[in-house]
Parts: sequence; structure tokens; C-alpha cells
Amino acid sequence: MQFHLNGYEPGDPEVSDPAARYDPSGAPGNLPEEVDVLIVGCGPAGLTLAAQLAAFSDIKTCIVDQKSGPLLRGQADGIACRTIEMFHAFGFSERVLKEGYWVNETTFWKPDDKQPENIIRSGRVQDVEEGLSEFPHVILNQARVHDFFLDVMRKSPARLKPHYARRLTDLQTDSTPSSASDPCSKQVTARLKRLDSSHGGEIETVKVRYVVGCDGARSTVRNCIGRALYGDSANHAWGVMDVLAVTDFPDIRLKGLIQSANQGTIVLIPREGGYLVRIYVELDKLDQNERVSNRNISADDLIAATQRVLKPYAFEVKEIAWWSVYEIGQRLCDKFDDVLARHLADQLPRVFITGDACHTHSPKAGQGMNVSMQDSFNLGWKLASVLRNRCAPRLLHTYSAERQAIAKELIDFDREWAEMLSASAKSATELNPSEVQAYFVRQGRYTAGTATCYRPSIITGESAYQDLARGFVIGTRFHSAPVIRLADAKPVQLGHAVKADGRWRLFAFADRDDPAGAASRIRGLCEFLAEASGSPVMKYTPVGEDIDSVIDVRAIFQQSHRELAIEKMPELLLPQKGRYGLRDYEKMFCGDLSDGKDVFSMRGIDRQRGCMVVVRPDQYVAHVLPIDAYAELATFFDGFMIAADRRQNDDRRGVARAQIAATAVS
Amino acid sequence: MQFHLNGYEPGDPEVSDPAARYDPSGAPGNLPEEVDVLIVGCGPAGLTLAAQLAAFSDIKTCIVDQKSGPLLRGQADGIACRTIEMFHAFGFSERVLKEGYWVNETTFWKPDDKQPENIIRSGRVQDVEEGLSEFPHVILNQARVHDFFLDVMRKSPARLKPHYARRLTDLQTDSTPSSASDPCSKQVTARLKRLDSSHGGEIETVKVRYVVGCDGARSTVRNCIGRALYGDSANHAWGVMDVLAVTDFPDIRLKGLIQSANQGTIVLIPREGGYLVRIYVELDKLDQNERVSNRNISADDLIAATQRVLKPYAFEVKEIAWWSVYEIGQRLCDKFDDVLARHLADQLPRVFITGDACHTHSPKAGQGMNVSMQDSFNLGWKLASVLRNRCAPRLLHTYSAERQAIAKELIDFDREWAEMLSASAKSATELNPSEVQAYFVRQGRYTAGTATCYRPSIITGESAYQDLARGFVIGTRFHSAPVIRLADAKPVQLGHAVKADGRWRLFAFADRDDPAGAASRIRGLCEFLAEASGSPVMKYTPVGEDIDSVIDVRAIFQQSHRELAIEKMPELLLPQKGRYGLRDYEKMFCGDLSDGKDVFSMRGIDRQRGCMVVVRPDQYVAHVLPIDAYAELATFFDGFMIAADRRQNDDRRGVARAQIAATAVS
Repeated sequence: MQFHLNGYEPGDPEVSDPAARYDPSGAPGNLPEEVDVLIVGCGPAGLTLAAQLAAFSDIKTCIVDQKSGPLLRGQADGIACRTIEMFHAFGFSERVLKEGYWVNETTFWKPDDKQPENIIRSGRVQDVEEGLSEFPHVILNQARVHDFFLDVMRKSPARLKPHYARRLTDLQTDSTPSSASDPCSKQVTARLKRLDSSHGGEIETVKVRYVVGCDGARSTVRNCIGRALYGDSANHAWGVMDVLAVTDFPDIRLKGLIQSANQGTIVLIPREGGYLVRIYVELDKLDQNERVSNRNISADDLIAATQRVLKPYAFEVKEIAWWSVYEIGQRLCDKFDDVLARHLADQLPRVFITGDACHTHSPKAGQGMNVSMQDSFNLGWKLASVLRNRCAPRLLHTYSAERQAIAKELIDFDREWAEMLSASAKSATELNPSEVQAYFVRQGRYTAGTATCYRPSIITGESAYQDLARGFVIGTRFHSAPVIRLADAKPVQLGHAVKADGRWRLFAFADRDDPAGAASRIRGLCEFLAEASGSPVMKYTPVGEDIDSVIDVRAIFQQSHRELAIEKMPELLLPQKGRYGLRDYEKMFCGDLSDGKDVFSMRGIDRQRGCMVVVRPDQYVAHVLPIDAYAELATFFDGFMIAADRRQNDDRRGVARAQIAATAVS
Repeated sequence: MQFHLNGYEPGDPEVSDPAARYDPSGAPGNLPEEVDVLIVGCGPAGLTLAAQLAAFSDIKTCIVDQKSGPLLRGQADGIACRTIEMFHAFGFSERVLKEGYWVNETTFWKPDDKQPENIIRSGRVQDVEEGLSEFPHVILNQARVHDFFLDVMRKSPARLKPHYARRLTDLQTDSTPSSASDPCSKQVTARLKRLDSSHGGEIETVKVRYVVGCDGARSTVRNCIGRALYGDSANHAWGVMDVLAVTDFPDIRLKGLIQSANQGTIVLIPREGGYLVRIYVELDKLDQNERVSNRNISADDLIAATQRVLKPYAFEVKEIAWWSVYEIGQRLCDKFDDVLARHLADQLPRVFITGDACHTHSPKAGQGMNVSMQDSFNLGWKLASVLRNRCAPRLLHTYSAERQAIAKELIDFDREWAEMLSASAKSATELNPSEVQAYFVRQGRYTAGTATCYRPSIITGESAYQDLARGFVIGTRFHSAPVIRLADAKPVQLGHAVKADGRWRLFAFADRDDPAGAASRIRGLCEFLAEASGSPVMKYTPVGEDIDSVIDVRAIFQQSHRELAIEKMPELLLPQKGRYGLRDYEKMFCGDLSDGKDVFSMRGIDRQRGCMVVVRPDQYVAHVLPIDAYAELATFFDGFMIAADRRQNDDRRGVARAQIAATAVS
């Protein structure tokens, strides 16, 4: 897609009329008096969380922002492979792939040894390691990511829209500590001031169960719970601009790290639509405690600095779509909720912070927006599970534990990266472009967002059986692979079975035996799951809900899809669902051998023994277990889930059996 | 995507609230008094044409339908590979791929030799030949195809919406024959009756330049121009139904042709969403002149007939989303416009008919909707080119000439196919399932829509140089292949450069020489196109428009994208466009060698000599020429195009040169 040729226009580029490209409206009327979750901030973190919670019609969510409407331009633009995997779970990856710029290669430029005032290309690398993800690394305006989430919210069961022009003023929490016996009691009162002209200054009060601060580096929510960001003082200024320009620089449509001899460094990011480009440009070192905003830096300064770095190439800016200056500051909060470390055992969190509210970085590694959304994706299903009474509220402690550790790793990575790019801190001779390049390649997995690995906890198992599936590393995201769906022979990505619907997935990789055989281990597992009183499927699925509504079981076979008879498969893999008891035919897959390697080979699965891979609602591998480790499977879920009512369950199981009997496959 | 589990709901399945899934509104108010094109009928043919014309803000189009709102269910559902290629040009292929059922394999069932009252599987084939198209064969409700076109129209420069509840009553044409000197004079007056309750019976009168009847088998437009459908009387009845059912038939999620011994034949088509299925079921033979509507056939009859064919399998219908009965009738109109054959030389067409208005078929080959849309895609750019004064009005004669021949081929194919499926016409022993299966495989290209080949005409060249590109057969659709875009190293499909924007494309496949060389033949071609007075680019591009606005030149090189220096390429391939003179970096491609075969190998292009492939606005190959056949290229375009004003052109060329000089690549 090509757009922005005649100037930057915000919103959906497929709409011809610029005035019709975006919907400026928020939710009308006053804030509700009581909600389950109040989300403060409509950035990527806030909207990811809102989109996740909006999937559940039984959760009442409110999302507010100080701004008077949606973001239209600027801010972040890097979208890591891992993030598109998440977007796929929310159902809009194809829109990002269609509209965004694909980062296929990155080029490196350095001073020309012969003429050090000129730059020359020093290297060129593939941006993303082969096979790291089924999705590419993409660049797209943050505003469009917002639009896609707003669209998910609008279409969702909750039909959620943001309330704009509200500023949080304070949070009051009950003095009574929350407890496991009454986890959802309303314990927080939020006061917000209206900023819209017709209601300016009016105060609204909302009683909420959980508050999530997605309100950026100057977070009010963070201040309300007495937390702060710690880390480097920001003393290096950078400028950033999105421009339409004419240049003879040959790599203008490739991501580039460009280091000049004496004029500093720029990072060049081609943008969506074929014409726009983003440039990060190094500015002056700041004095201690100085703010860059005091320097009176103008857009012309950024352009001039860019032109100096790019010599001998011309760079004529025709339009500036957006620009900003900022200080680099790697800062981190020590905990991401309102429970003090010494109260972990006796208090439950009610207030959370995500994204820039708890960690800030240099934008040039393209991490900020991505990590912020992953924060919310981590928190969203946990809040929903607790609010829907499916999981014990102690689950909520895992949010800060998991994400603070990840943020710390990120800050460390980011600091190293930012220092490497601050060429002016070193002389040109000291700076080693091949070192930068090597570092870039080595850190590819980090940048792609696939390096995240959660430590063992109540929702992340120990690695006793990791050998059964070496490519599905416990604690990392479930790495998708191509498979063939048995019932309709469709080539699909196995990981795309994971939707942002709050469900757990159990991928059962069968051993070599015929799965139709009476003694097959996969049949044994299915019978355990569908029938045994200790089965987590039986125990945790509420009456009246589909059998896959809490734990969604999928099976993957080693045989070709033409070798297997679907009618002989275990009942659990052809479940009858919904008001009509229609069969779901999308639970079984076979290896895709068209490229010579199937999922078993690609992910190092033990073909002799098979295995179970348990996947969290946020796509992370929670556990790898032997295919017959029923007790260990049950114990794992027992660690954090709440059993549905027994009597109801027995009823449900009876109904399921009757249904299966009524339409039994001969 | 899975949906329709709890019942069929029309509209966008991504919207949770069924009431918000579709937009029932049409254009408000009265019909305009004068338009350039009046389209009668909002089926696939009408909407394809409307979407095409809506791309041009300078064309005034009106589309009407008798119905009171958009289609919500039923009718056609097969979408051929070729059709998705066209959808891609309109910008919504990814939505069809996401939502539709993919036909990966087709199964064949026949009477069991041992127990002829039961069916058994007799075969299973890949549905679409490997490499036939970059897109699959897909099944999706016709109503959704309408929705996507309505969406294109809504977002288009013309912001077009249908006027519903209008029935065409008559067309009055001026007695003066239209002439080449005044092709756009308003010569047709259409009268339409309003059917909406608040305006029921009111007559509206519209003066139009061109009328297109997309109004189905009982077309009023066809009747107005005194044409009729000729062919078989319909004497074989079939039923069709979209159902949600529970069955133990194992191939319920695979397309199937199922022939019973004595109970007739069904065609089973799995549908979008994972649960819905369409079944075509053979009913009784009709008496001469009998209409199936007189048989009082009910949905229960269709279900009972299906159950009889499917024995020994159970088939329990839970909900019928839509059903219908119809007669097979292969019928064809001898000409698709209002010019009598004897007046071809002295009259120009003003009224056209497309789709079912000029050809009807059995639906089971999945051709009707696809061919109808291709009719309109063929006509749309021609009408637009003539209305915009870019092409001579005699171009309009090619519509009937090209599409009538294709329709005739289709009718012949369809008759053969329908006869083969009418098992009751033969005894079970006579019917040879392997013959059916072999025929199905052989006709795969036909069914995929890729067999269409237009004969030589003013817009389709002779095959003198076909050997230069054996895989781009003149007259057939441009068969896309993977390439790497030079400027940003992105893997793309070359054919996706062709958008439904009315432009011609010239794909210049370079020879082996370095394209940056001063003597390179591709540079020679670019210089001719950009500078020579005989260049069709110079001659036909209006002043003030981008240099690629009429003929869009793309180059494909044999070298790897890392071997070529973009800054040394011919200026025409880095054109400066728009109000700012921004460079377009998407004109150059290199072979994608990741699979070992690049586009030159895949499409049989002469590596020693290279070639030009001229592609029409509707994606068909118009010509293959040597890369230095400047005169023949010019002669080809001179055959149907109208030169832009010379003086203006000279100005434009001057401007282009000045722009290029101003930012010349060093």
C-alpha cells in the first residue's frame, strides 16, 4: 500500500476522504459509578488491556484518557514479531501486515576512511533471524495500532469505547486489606476531573475493584500508590521526526544505523505507505538535571543535524508530519502493583501499573510500545480470570513478579544499546561499527520480543520434562509452526489456535502409534480429560459452557492427514458445542511435510513419547509434560484455578456423554 | 475464524452484536438527474462495476437495486483463485482469505460395490493445481462479497452507496446514433419506480451516458435492448441449502461429490466459520416447460434427499440458514450490448449487460458469480477510460466480443459438467466415478478461473514474441510470481502491483546485463519512455498527473537485490510524484531465489534478451514484446488510446526533467 504521497493524513489510508479516516468520538455521557476495572490511559498498554477485558461481557471495564480524542500521529512505531503474534490473537495481524512497513534488512553506515566527512555503507544484515517467528518485524504508526485496538473494543461483546478528557486526580483505597475470601469487593474509589469544555472541572467518582495505570512515565496511578521510577537521570538528548523528504541517500527505504565521524548518529526507520520516514537524531549532551525542553530545539535543528550526518547525500524535507525531542532515560519501578514486598503473603494487589508507568527506555531499540503491550497482555487474562472466579486472586501477584523481571532485562539491554549509539560520547576512531553491527545481530531475538522467558511460578512449570519438546521452552512464548488441519486439509499455523480469549490451551503431541487405536496414549489422555474426576477440564469448566471454554485441547499427529480417519478419533477432539451440539472440527492437526520438516522436527518433540504442551492465555508455554502425566497436569492447574461447582460439573459431564452417545460415530 | 456455532447470523462475524454486523442503509434521497453510468442491480456483477467506477472521482455513477437493502444470506459462495486475484486488486483479498473456507481437497464418494445402498469414498484430490495462483480456492457467502465491495465503494473517492428499492421500468435511447466525435453525449433516459413504502410507486427519471444491466437472469435491461437468453430449457431440478448439522459423515469439512446408487447425487461444500455446510441435492426431472417452483418442494424434502444419499451416515439438520430450488439452464445471450452485429462499424454501444443477465449456468461448478464479476471487471476500466477521454469509444466494442466468447466456453463446460453430475440420467453402473474425478482434475484451471484467454484485438496483441515470456500467455491473466522489491528488500508478489485503478502496466524484464550500465537495454527503454516524443507514456499522460498515472512502468532484474545500486538506476524507475515530487521506490524488483527458481525461470522469460509484458487494467496480458520494440509498443497503444494535448505534454515533460535535474542522483 502506498499513501501519504501528498502529505501525511492520520487514520485509515484505505479511506479516500481524509475527514472520514478516523472516528474522533469517545463514549458519551458520564463515567459509570461502579466498574470492575478502571484503566487509566489510552496508549498501547491501556488499549491492549481494554481490548482483552472487552472480550468478556460479564466484566465491566472503563478506560479513560486525558486527551480529547484518539492519537493521530507520532510516538512509537516499531512492532516486533512477537507483538504481531499477539495482534493475531486479537484478530488484526493481517491489517498490520498490509499497512505497515516490513523491516527486511538493516543497513549500517560509517565514516568513509578515505573521506571521513562522508558516510559509506559498512554492512547489511537480514533484520530477523530465519524461523524466529511466522511474522515479520513491522513499522507502523502507534496511532494505527490504537485504531485497531479501538476497533476490537468496538466490535467486542462489551462494545467498549474510551471516555476521553478525564484526568485522574486521586485513588482512595479501603483500609481493610483485600482477602482471598472476598477478592472482588470494591475497595478503590477513583476521582477524575473532566477536561472537556462543556463539563470542564467537574469531578466524577467511580468505585472500582481494580485500577490499572497505563498513564505513562508521569503516571498519576503510580504516584497514588507511592511508587517511583528509579534509574539514570536523562542527560542525553535525541530528536525524532516523521518526514516526507526527497533524497539521493540510496538506503532511504531500509532501516539504517548511520554513524558520522563528527556529526553524531542517526537511526533511520522507513515508514508505512512508501514515502514517510522516521529519523532519530542525536542532539547535545544535557547538563545534570537539565530538561531538553529548555533547549528550544526546533524541527529545523533536527533537519540540519540529519543533513550533516547524511553527507554527501542530500536530504530535502518537504513536510514534517510529527517531531519531538526527548531525553534518554532508562528507569524502572521496583514493583508493578500496590502490595509491598513484605505483604506478599497477606495482601492482594488492587492497583497495577503497566508500560511507561513502570519502565522507560530509549525508543531506538523499538521496545517501549511492544513491552508495554506485553505487560497488559500478561495482566489482562489474569484480571479476567480472577474477576470471573476461575482463578484464585493470588494469581495477580504473578503480574508484577513476571513483568518487573522482564522490564529489568529490557532496561539493561536498552542502556547498553543506547550507549553504543551515542557516538559523540566516543571519538569516531574509538567507535567500532562492526561491533555495533555484531551486537545488533546478537540481540535480534531480544528486539523481536521472543527472548522473554518467565521463571517458574504457580503458572510456569519446572523444566523436568523439557527434553520432550526442546523447541517449546517453558516460560517462553509458544513458537508457532505450520501444520495441516485434519478435517479440512488446510495448512495453518498451530500457534494461531491461541486467541486472546482467556482460555488455556493444551497441545497434545501424539506419539508414533495410530491415534485411532484403543490403546493409544493420546486416546488415554483424551479419556482422562473428558471423563476422570481429577481432570482439569472436568473440574474447572462451568456447567453450561462448552467443553473447551476453559481448557482448549488440541492434538497434533505424526501421520499425514490422509492417513488418519477422523471418525475414529477420541470424542474429546470432535467436541459438540453450542446450543445445537455442533461438532468442532478444528481440534486436530497433522505435520505439514511440504517443506520436509514437520512441527515435531521443527520444535524438537520426542516422536517416540509425544508430550503435552500447556499454553497460557497470553501464548506463553506454561508447562511441558509427558502425555500420560495426568496427576502432574492436574496438580499444575490446581495451583491457581478455582473448581467449578461439583454437582453442576457432574451434570455437565452427564450431558456431554449423552450428547456424544446420541450422535456417536459408528 | 469460527462462527455461526449458535445459529447463522448475517454480516461481519468479527462484530459481536448481531444487530451491528451489517449496514442496512443505502444512499438517501432521490436518484440524481444525470449520471455517467447507471448500474442496474446490486449483485456481484453490479457491485464489482460500481467499486471500479467509484475509484474515479470524475465519474458520476449510480447503482440501483429492487431490493430494500443488502443481501444477507444465500445465493452463490464459490470464489475462484482468479477472483481473489481480482479482489486483491480491489484491496480486500485478505478479508476473504481470513473469513472464507479454503477448498484444499475434494473428495469423491460412490456406491459401495459390496453394499450399493451405502456410499464409500472413491477418491481424494488436491483441489487446485500447485502453482496455479498465489491464492487458494475459497468458499464464502455471496453476501459477504457484496459487503466487501460496498466497503470499497464507501471508502472510495466517489463515496458511492446503492439506491435500494428501485425497479427499472424502461430505457429510452436517442434516435441519433452515438458517434466517435461525441461519445459521451447523454443518449439514454432511464425510468425507475420506487418500491420503498414511503415513496412507493413514484417514478424517477435519470439521463445517463451508459447503462449496465447487472440485473440477473430476468434482466429488464436485456429486455429493453431486445436481447434474450438462448439455450437449454431447464428440465432438471436441484435444491440447495445452507445448514448447521450434526453428522458422522467423515468428510463433512471437505468439498465432496457424492453419488449414490439410486438416490441421486449431492455436492457438499463446507462453508466459512467451521460449522455451516452447503448441500446441492439432485431433485426430480421436470416435465417440458415445467417450473420447479410448481413442485411445492420444501426444505424437508431437501434434507430427506440428502439423508438418503449419505447413507449409511446420519445427517441431522439443526438449522437451515437458507435454501432454494432451481432448474439447471445453460443459456446465453448472443451479444452483450445494444449494437447489432451489422452496425459494429458505425455504432457505439451505450447499454451493456453482464453476469446472469447474459449467461446462466448450473451453480455447482462454482462459476456463475466468478464469471459475472470478471464481466464487470472487463467492462469497468473500459467505461472509465472512455468517460475520462483516455481511450477511444470503439474500445467498448471489445467488452461484448471478449466476454461473450468466454461465456460461451463456460456454458459448454458447465453443460458437460452438469450432465456428468446428473447421476439419475444414467444408471449407477453406467456412471463412472473415476471419469467424473478425472474430468474434475482436468478442468481445474477452468474452475479456478485461470483458463480465460482473450483473442487478438485492438487491446490484445498477436503472439509473435510469445517465446520471450512463455509463462505470460497473451490474452490470459498476468500470472503473479514472487519477487524481491529492490528498495526495501521486501518479498512481494509481482502481480500485486496491479491495482483496480484503471492503469496499464508495463513490466520490463531486464536482460542479463547490468541495468546500471550506460548501454543497458533497460536503460534504453526507460529513456525512450521518459523522453521520446513517440513514447506512449509521454503521449497519453495528461499534464499535471504523475508519470505513472496512465502507464505504470515496473522493472524486474535478474541480479540479486543486494548486487544492484538503486542510485544508478534509470530515472523513470525512481519517479518523482505528487505535490512534493517525492520519489516512488516501488518500481523495481529482483528475482526471489529463496525457492531456487526466480520469476524468470517460473514464467519462462528469455534471460538473454529480456522482454516487455504489457498488462491491462483488468490484469490480463495484452502483449509481449522485445525490450527494444519501441515502435511496436507505441503502435499498440495508438490503437485505442487518445493522445493528451501536445502542448500540455511538452510542458509536463519539461517539468519532469526539471524535477529530475533538481534532485539528480549523483
